[in-house]
This record gives sequence, structure tokens and C-alpha cells, in this order.
Amino acid sequence: MGYRIAVVGATGLVGQEMLKILHERNIPISEIYAFASARSEGTYVEFGNEKIKVEKATTEGISKAEFALFSIGEEISLELAPEIAKKGTIIIDNSNAFRMDPEVPLVIPEINSEDLKNHKNIIANPNCSTIQMLVALYPLHKKWKLSKIFVATYQSVSGKGKEAIDGLLKETEYFVQTKEFTSTAFPYPIAFNLIPHIDSFELENYSREEMKMVRETHKILHDPTIKISPTCVRVPVLRGHSEVINAEFEKEFSLEEVFKTLSNAPGVKILDEPSNKVYPMPIYCDGKDEVFVGRIRKDLFNPKALNMWVVADNIRKGAALNAVQILECLIKK
Amino acid sequence: MGYRIAVVGATGLVGQEMLKILHERNIPISEIYAFASARSEGTYVEFGNEKIKVEKATTEGISKAEFALFSIGEEISLELAPEIAKKGTIIIDNSNAFRMDPEVPLVIPEINSEDLKNHKNIIANPNCSTIQMLVALYPLHKKWKLSKIFVATYQSVSGKGKEAIDGLLKETEYFVQTKEFTSTAFPYPIAFNLIPHIDSFELENYSREEMKMVRETHKILHDPTIKISPTCVRVPVLRGHSEVINAEFEKEFSLEEVFKTLSNAPGVKILDEPSNKVYPMPIYCDGKDEVFVGRIRKDLFNPKALNMWVVADNIRKGAALNAVQILECLIKK
Repeated sequence: MGYRIAVVGATGLVGQEMLKILHERNIPISEIYAFASARSEGTYVEFGNEKIKVEKATTEGISKAEFALFSIGEEISLELAPEIAKKGTIIIDNSNAFRMDPEVPLVIPEINSEDLKNHKNIIANPNCSTIQMLVALYPLHKKWKLSKIFVATYQSVSGKGKEAIDGLLKETEYFVQTKEFTSTAFPYPIAFNLIPHIDSFELENYSREEMKMVRETHKILHDPTIKISPTCVRVPVLRGHSEVINAEFEKEFSLEEVFKTLSNAPGVKILDEPSNKVYPMPIYCDGKDEVFVGRIRKDLFNPKALNMWVVADNIRKGAALNAVQILECLIKK
Repeated sequence: MGYRIAVVGATGLVGQEMLKILHERNIPISEIYAFASARSEGTYVEFGNEKIKVEKATTEGISKAEFALFSIGEEISLELAPEIAKKGTIIIDNSNAFRMDPEVPLVIPEINSEDLKNHKNIIANPNCSTIQMLVALYPLHKKWKLSKIFVATYQSVSGKGKEAIDGLLKETEYFVQTKEFTSTAFPYPIAFNLIPHIDSFELENYSREEMKMVRETHKILHDPTIKISPTCVRVPVLRGHSEVINAEFEKEFSLEEVFKTLSNAPGVKILDEPSNKVYPMPIYCDGKDEVFVGRIRKDLFNPKALNMWVVADNIRKGAALNAVQILECLIKK
């Protein structure tokens, strides 16, 4: 009574969170498989109270499952997913590999679960920074139509995996002891620093992380006319991404309507009473499912624009949770 | 042979930096005085190789000086400065006390030293976030006229003084040892966290820090029509503020012209070769005089706009250095 489900990349930060969320949300599972790269073969991961033995990720192994949640990196996804999909397993892939493939739906369940209708056994999970931005903006977009987005990100090190979390802690300890900076998981020290560089650089000197926010937004909202100006920055936070957003709409709105709309929006939680020191902060969003929105203000000079501050757990809603929610949509059908 | 100069608030982070810069830049000084609140009376501060005894800040004491650089907080500035100015001492005040007073010039020497002509013995030093933003934007504004600025700040704890620097280090050590957060100088923990709240909140839920960026920009550029959307955020960086800026101009420009203009601009240094990992970062701007500009990109959807990343030492150019530069302008006249 249930589905055969595989988590591919099960020893990583996102993979472990996928297992945790699959268990928490009582997904009907008859068999759970954990796959990872050869390096982790034979180790164990947790699924509720069970320990599951990790198998090496192979086409044959993974295709035992009806659904496979991938978070094992772009290269391995590109190598394994197409063949596994052909054998009938439905893949929800967290990497960048297939996101812009016109045959692959790119889905945030709160927004475009309709797009799941036409999948060919591969579905892509969007980038973390895109997910939290759009969960917060989509309810407003539906009402007043987005025309322009400025976004500056404050992205935690966890986006680069466990070794980046350990790295930040190590760098921090080293600085406290020696008053000197050292670097671990990034090209420069990240402890007490900011690095305006996430992923590689593309044409026009935008980073790939920034371009993901542009392209994925256009695909998810089915609207390539929305103007997006992104700048992505790594900050010395362990977990949770934050974003300053200025959004301009085609129609005018009142702040009251914005609050009402967002307070009824799925997956959104408003924390916005600044004079009582209520606003979202990453350390308090760690482990939470919602996208937290605060500092909501009308633009001072543009009645069709607003400013906001959006924080979410990048490992949950930005990755593992969104993937499991896609799985839930597929199961319901 | 030289001027009688007082530093008021000499034991603070900015006051000590003022003394350091006065010495470094060989300001002609016949007598140097250090003043602070009663608490620090009788302690010593450094001026080159000399030790100067700290006196309690009083109208009588400070008015011995021809020039007084104030960085002692809004309240004491409001209390002492008007009377001292009446007695003939010229005050350069780093607090918010007089910045918007129409009789007080608000000056960034690279931009509006002309405004010094009409002072009445009090001159205001702008807010740190405003200074670095405008040093970077003014050379472009002169050519193409700014119409709109979207700015998200990443402000270090040093803006709140020495105790905030010690506090961040303490919080960090505590977390490394216990895996628990604790707070020191801010309403919430700042180690591994972000706080979207600097100074108090005003009408429309903008913070005073955000409104300073709007009002001061209008005053310094003598143009209240520039549209500014600011969001100010405290980050776990010890020293150096960073800003993501999207600026829209009235006229079109090429990126080449922008690079040429900024590379000839006073006080600006371009660090912008992202594919070689060259971009400004706060830990490398500590102790430097320049405003560092990088990640310069044309807006993807607006030929009249660009994105940039601006970093500066908030204690130097954002405070002490700018004040000493104002003093230099006054001395030259």
C-alpha cells in the first residue's frame, strides 16, 4: 500500500531533508531507497526510526522506484535521469540540468502545478532563490500583474552543502582565535565577509545564479515580459536565504490589499510589525516550511511598486520540501 | 603654525579613526584636543605617537578649538554644537542632528564642496550608507542624470560602535561553543543572522536609516525628484558596508563609458573582473579610503539602467575620512 520512492543524493543536505520530509508528511511509501555516489555506498541514512543502507546511484538501481527525487548535482542528473525516465520512473530533479528544457515542467506547487500535466517523466525543481521570491510574489502577480522585479539576495552557505556549513564554522573559529581570515568552501573567506558571486559567470557578467532567477521566473509564470534585475550575494549565515525585493505591478493597489492577499496565500507567512521588532530573520526560519514576508512597504515614489523582505529555509522550501510537494501533486492525480 | 582642532567623541570608533586620519594626512595642527562624555574623562587616546588626555565635552572646553570634529551622538551634538558654533568654532558633525537643517551644509567633498560656502559654523557629515552610494553614483549622475535608485544595504556591525564589534565576536564564539544564539548589541542575535532593522522605524514603516538615504541624497544632489527605494539590513560583518544598487538614468549610456567615467572619478576604485574573481568584498576594504565598485552590469531589460555592488569602509569614508576631507576643504579656503 504505497509507492516505491528513491532519494538520489541521499547523503547530502537536501537528500537527508527529503527523507525527513517524506517521513513527516506521511507520504504513502511501500519501499524507500537511498542512492548516492560511489563514495557513500554502504553508509546509512535515517528515515524516521529506520536506517536505510545507501546504494550506489545506477540506472538499474534507481529504476526500481516509481518516483525518484534527485539532488545529486547537475552532472549525474544529466547522465542518469534521461535513461531512468525512459524506463518509467518519474524523476523530480533538484539540479539545474533540465530546468530550462521545454519538455520539462519547472514547478512550484503553489503556482503552476497545472504544468505537471505534460511531463515526460522528468520534472525540475526550481532554484532556491527563485522559489521563495515567487511564492511571495505570485499571489500579488495574479491580482496586479508583475512588470518589474529588483532583487538583491542574501544567501546562506548551506546552498553549497554540508561542507560549506562546516567551513563557515571552521573559518569563524579560526578568526576568533587568530584574528585572521581563512577560506574553506568558497574562493574567499566567507566568515565576516560577503561574496557577490554565486555559481559561474555568464555573458554580460551576470552570474548563473542571477540568470536562473530571470529565466526560471519567466518559465514558471509563463511570462517572458517581466523585467528582472537580480544581484546574488553569499552571506555568512548558516541556513536560510533572504531577499530584498522591489516589485512593480501594472495596476495600482493598496497596502491593505497586499496584506490581505498575502495572509491568505498558500505557503506564505507574514511577519511584519517593525515597530514591535517583528520581521523575518534567517535564524528563526531554519527548519520552517513557510516563506516569510516582512518589511512590506509601498515604494515611496511609485504607487504601483512595493518593497519587501523575504526569508525562507533554502534547504526546505527552497529545495527538499518543494520537491516533495511536487511528488504529492503527482500522487494525487 | 597650524589649527587648533578638537575631536569630540574621541574614544569612540569614529573618533579614534578621525585622530588617526588627521595624523596620516598631515593636517596642519598647532593643538589637538580630545573630548568625550564624562565616563571617559582622564583616559588617553592616541594621536600619532602622542597620547592625549581626554577631557569632558563641554561648551567651554571645545570652544578653545577653531575646528571641532564631532562624533559623539545626536543628543550631545544637539545640546553642545549650537552654542559652540556661536562662539566661533566650526563644527563638522557626524551625527544625524543637523543633516536636514536647511542652514547646515551636508557635504561629500567629491560632490558638493561648493555647499560649504554658506555654512554658519555647523557642517553635517552624511550617513555612511549615503556617502558610499553617492560617491559611486555622482560621476554617472553628472553625465546621464539619475532618475531612480533601488538600493539594498549589507551593513556591518561597526556602524553601531566598538561594543557591537566585540558583541559579534562574543556571539560567534558562544555559538561555536554551544550551538546556541545569543544577542549582545542588537535586539536579536547578529552572528550568523541578518536583521532588516537599522535605527528606529518611521512613517510608512521605512526605517530612519532608509529615510536618511532618501533625504540626504536629495539634499546633497540638490534634486528632490530622484526616486529612491532603500532597504537597510544589518549583516554579520565586522567592518565595511556593502550595497546592491540598481540606478536608472534619464539618458542612455554604454558600459564602456561607465567604466571610463568611474575609473576617473575621485574616491572611486573599480574592482570588476568577475570571471577572474575580482569584485569588492568588505574584509578587503577595511582600512581603505576608496569606495570600491564592482559587478557593474547593464540592466537586462532597461538600457538606461545598471546594476552595481559598492563596498566601502563605513568608519573611514563613511564617517571619519569624509569629516576630515570636509575640514581640508575649509582649510584650503
